[in-house]
Amino acid sequence: MAKGLETRQSILERAAPLFNQRGFAGCSMGDVMEATGLEKGGLYRHFESKEELAIEVLRYSLERATRIRLEAVPEGTRAIEAISRYIEHFVVAPSAVPGGCPLMNAAIDSDDGNPALRAVVRKHLCSWKKRMRSLVERAQTEGDVKTDVDVEWLADTIIATLEGALMMSRVERTRQPLRHAQRSLEVVFASVKTERSR
Amino acid sequence: MAKGLETRQSILERAAPLFNQRGFAGCSMGDVMEATGLEKGGLYRHFESKEELAIEVLRYSLERATRIRLEAVPEGTRAIEAISRYIEHFVVAPSAVPGGCPLMNAAIDSDDGNPALRAVVRKHLCSWKKRMRSLVERAQTEGDVKTDVDVEWLADTIIATLEGALMMSRVERTRQPLRHAQRSLEVVFASVKTERSR
Repeated sequence: MAKGLETRQSILERAAPLFNQRGFAGCSMGDVMEATGLEKGGLYRHFESKEELAIEVLRYSLERATRIRLEAVPEGTRAIEAISRYIEHFVVAPSAVPGGCPLMNAAIDSDDGNPALRAVVRKHLCSWKKRMRSLVERAQTEGDVKTDVDVEWLADTIIATLEGALMMSRVERTRQPLRHAQRSLEVVFASVKTERSR
Repeated sequence: MAKGLETRQSILERAAPLFNQRGFAGCSMGDVMEATGLEKGGLYRHFESKEELAIEVLRYSLERATRIRLEAVPEGTRAIEAISRYIEHFVVAPSAVPGGCPLMNAAIDSDDGNPALRAVVRKHLCSWKKRMRSLVERAQTEGDVKTDVDVEWLADTIIATLEGALMMSRVERTRQPLRHAQRSLEVVFASVKTERSR
């Protein structure tokens, strides 16, 4: 990796927990300079503004979170099993970036504010939903989920239940809400499985 | 109401949407002065610091949200019906304070930061769970929910599913994730209802 790209990547890595923990307004370019050891000129050579940096940091954090979550799902697994492993991994794994789920943090941070950040959040949520829908559709093709089930509903349910439970879990500092979410998703999936798959 | 208390109340009302939309770091005492038309001295006469103001604003917003949500549940209703009305109201009603759910916003804002704000969030989440548990327990006493059902699990499931869906709903600017959450909760409740109650 060229030196410039290396520095850029290292800024993203170091700034990611700062923005994820403190939010856009709570994190200054000064904080990033301190965390990276760069001078103002060095930092602005790579990112024109705090907004540009925040957007690139968010993309970096979301990609990292997605990659880590998908690694938990081995290739060649039946979709119904992949969904179950995905949920289990969400429940037990620590945050990909310190500070909790970057999607939820940035969603709350940007829903009334920064439209550029909100656009990144929106796009990522859309692709997360799409990934969940594809898994459910594959489970239908494989004969494990009934074909008349609304895949949009199931995809939304997986994401909403896990994200809401993660918020509670971070407030309470226990995994119990996440375990409870897993149990609720099992109940929901039991209602859509084919006879054969139960 | 005495003049001093009136001013204090009016500061809380005007500052509530600011803190709820922008978060603790994103909202300054200057913003509050502008929104209330008060000078620095006038504002600090009522609240010693931004932290004290933020805490009182959060309490005000949480009480308001709770009151409005509970008003949707008429007295004398069977608990199973009260839960259903509570969920319906959460799905259709606009935020009690502009900027979305004050609990979720403050949770995300304070989970890595401000311990005093986090303590308010934690206490409120605890009492919200307690309220949901009491409703489920009453539904058990009234013979609508099976007596061997884990009430902690059900209480967590209601809150997590609704809060996660609200986050998605605010990103997408549609109510669909909330409607989907309502459907999922119906499926979960169908699995715990007594034969008689179905």
